[in-house]
Amino acid sequence: MATAPLLAEARELELAEPLALDCGQRLQGVRIAFETYGRLDADNANTILIFHATTGDQHVASINPRTGKPGWWDRMVGPGKPIDTDRFFVLCANVLGGCMGSTGPSSLAADGAPYAMRFPVITIRDMVRAQVALLDSLGIERLHAAAGGSMGGMQALSLAANWPDRVERVLAIAATATMGAQNIAFQEVGRQAIMADPNWQGGHYYGTGKAPDAGLAVARMAAHITYLSEASLTEKFGRRLQDRTQKSFGFDADFQVESYLRHQGLSFISRFDANSYLYITRAMSYFDLAEEHGGRLAEAFAATTARFCVVSFDSDWLYPTEVSRRLVHGLNAAGAPVSFVELSAPFGHDSFLLEVPALDRVVRGFLDQ
Amino acid sequence: MATAPLLAEARELELAEPLALDCGQRLQGVRIAFETYGRLDADNANTILIFHATTGDQHVASINPRTGKPGWWDRMVGPGKPIDTDRFFVLCANVLGGCMGSTGPSSLAADGAPYAMRFPVITIRDMVRAQVALLDSLGIERLHAAAGGSMGGMQALSLAANWPDRVERVLAIAATATMGAQNIAFQEVGRQAIMADPNWQGGHYYGTGKAPDAGLAVARMAAHITYLSEASLTEKFGRRLQDRTQKSFGFDADFQVESYLRHQGLSFISRFDANSYLYITRAMSYFDLAEEHGGRLAEAFAATTARFCVVSFDSDWLYPTEVSRRLVHGLNAAGAPVSFVELSAPFGHDSFLLEVPALDRVVRGFLDQ
Repeated sequence: MATAPLLAEARELELAEPLALDCGQRLQGVRIAFETYGRLDADNANTILIFHATTGDQHVASINPRTGKPGWWDRMVGPGKPIDTDRFFVLCANVLGGCMGSTGPSSLAADGAPYAMRFPVITIRDMVRAQVALLDSLGIERLHAAAGGSMGGMQALSLAANWPDRVERVLAIAATATMGAQNIAFQEVGRQAIMADPNWQGGHYYGTGKAPDAGLAVARMAAHITYLSEASLTEKFGRRLQDRTQKSFGFDADFQVESYLRHQGLSFISRFDANSYLYITRAMSYFDLAEEHGGRLAEAFAATTARFCVVSFDSDWLYPTEVSRRLVHGLNAAGAPVSFVELSAPFGHDSFLLEVPALDRVVRGFLDQ
Repeated sequence: MATAPLLAEARELELAEPLALDCGQRLQGVRIAFETYGRLDADNANTILIFHATTGDQHVASINPRTGKPGWWDRMVGPGKPIDTDRFFVLCANVLGGCMGSTGPSSLAADGAPYAMRFPVITIRDMVRAQVALLDSLGIERLHAAAGGSMGGMQALSLAANWPDRVERVLAIAATATMGAQNIAFQEVGRQAIMADPNWQGGHYYGTGKAPDAGLAVARMAAHITYLSEASLTEKFGRRLQDRTQKSFGFDADFQVESYLRHQGLSFISRFDANSYLYITRAMSYFDLAEEHGGRLAEAFAATTARFCVVSFDSDWLYPTEVSRRLVHGLNAAGAPVSFVELSAPFGHDSFLLEVPALDRVVRGFLDQ
């Protein structure tokens, strides 16, 4: 069977109403950059909203214009794929606070200068709020499903908790309902790396010709280690040397894993804005669905009628199965229908992005229910 | 029983002979700063050499002059303590490459200027080589025991492997015989954080009034997370806020764990030299006892007659029990007498420094054998 090229429609929308944020501020003129795949059906009932992870974007299954690479969930989204664009109308928007077209710290404020650190501190719920406004604009009342991995999964959970009528199925992969202390710590290290870079200039680096690239690269390198399992690093690199047969007795990237990490840092700075990284990781560290709902996670899901599918990976040490289990307990306590599976996959947290055929089956099966 | 104050003798020695390093260079005028506790017995047979960890020093059980705090293993070393200074002559030296008195990158080279990055890249074996030269100078032919945690344990193993006649008992706690890819990656992030700091100036920051403090603090923060278990961070800090009842919707240290990490970074820069951090972590990433001995770990221990005690902690994810087990397999294959215990302790890798009474019993028992 010949595969037709997947047509992504890149769109942008400016919200007519100001967006009321958790911090108390109202943000005017919020723009949301998003992509759509497939067609909305006559009943307006076949939309799947995909939320992206921390450093993802709306290019879920189209060529990313900044990197020239396929979309980050290209293997999952498309005609005949688990999230089947022949059947579903798929939406994916860049998060509020991002740097791929949606309003964020690099966007221009009313005075014509970039917000920089004048951008309000946002929450995961604010990100979802912007996407609910997008659904309103598109006339989509109720989603067939909301789905995401990592921070994407947190947004899907926040949608179910705070807009319970808007979604029928929630797929949360390698996610958590409450950001834990170790993750808050790693997020803080990333921000400190950026803010320690003199080129950060208090966030006012736009247009100066200098950006905190070195700090952002270090932040990315540290984070990247947490996305992979120890076993996958060992399998992929071990102690193998990079383009040499002997150690250099110097500080070049002697080991392949060092070279790989440096590459990860360098390629990241070419596609991501440092201030966006600050705001998005801040939103993550603030995330606690229980706290938002009187300290009881079950309370967060009291009003939802959605079915849930929670997936964890046995090699994920950043959002280990234990935190998915706690989420499931909260859902159980709320009486929500939930299926929970821990998949065996070697890649660590990034397993949700990589070739894990069992995940494909889980996703396809859940969306068909 | 009244406890007599523990008398540490702070000493310094300059090696008469140049030190031949693994990189091929010979280092002239190596100075070693060390401390001694207790008295050498008439048979010259009661010395215990303690090796310190990455950022430790010779102040194993004396007040650290830079911090004013008790020595890093004060709870383990002293009269009547597991490493009993009433019975043993205890030695602890600052490592080669360090910054607490032993020759390192901040020391003056022959031309009167600090070595900075002209300092040769050293290995764990070079560190041990310097300490063997110290033993030679002191006329100590054979140690009752060599002991250390983390990088200290690696040095103890290197001593047994490369100078098999010099030691009767080897105690390696939370250590490894081969640095793994994930640890190499974390070490690289630390170095990149330092070298990304413009104040690093290619290592020539001595006397400029500017040092890469920001980069070194970030390196320390990232490393510090790896020293603790997720559970201990949750227990100690969880999501508790620091001196406030509400999130600030800003980038201050809202969470206690953020404040704690920043404090760890700041207090570290007041006592440690950034270039030493580069060299010492480089030595760690190069460490592979098997590779040094034809690729077979058993070969490394072929000539030793020492007994070994290997200790791991169940909450240590940096040097998990699995790597200790691999070390024990190597020792077994070499026919070396070894006792191996995984202790249950909540603190992660840092358990070897903290209150783990079971460790005290293991150490005391092993040294008495």
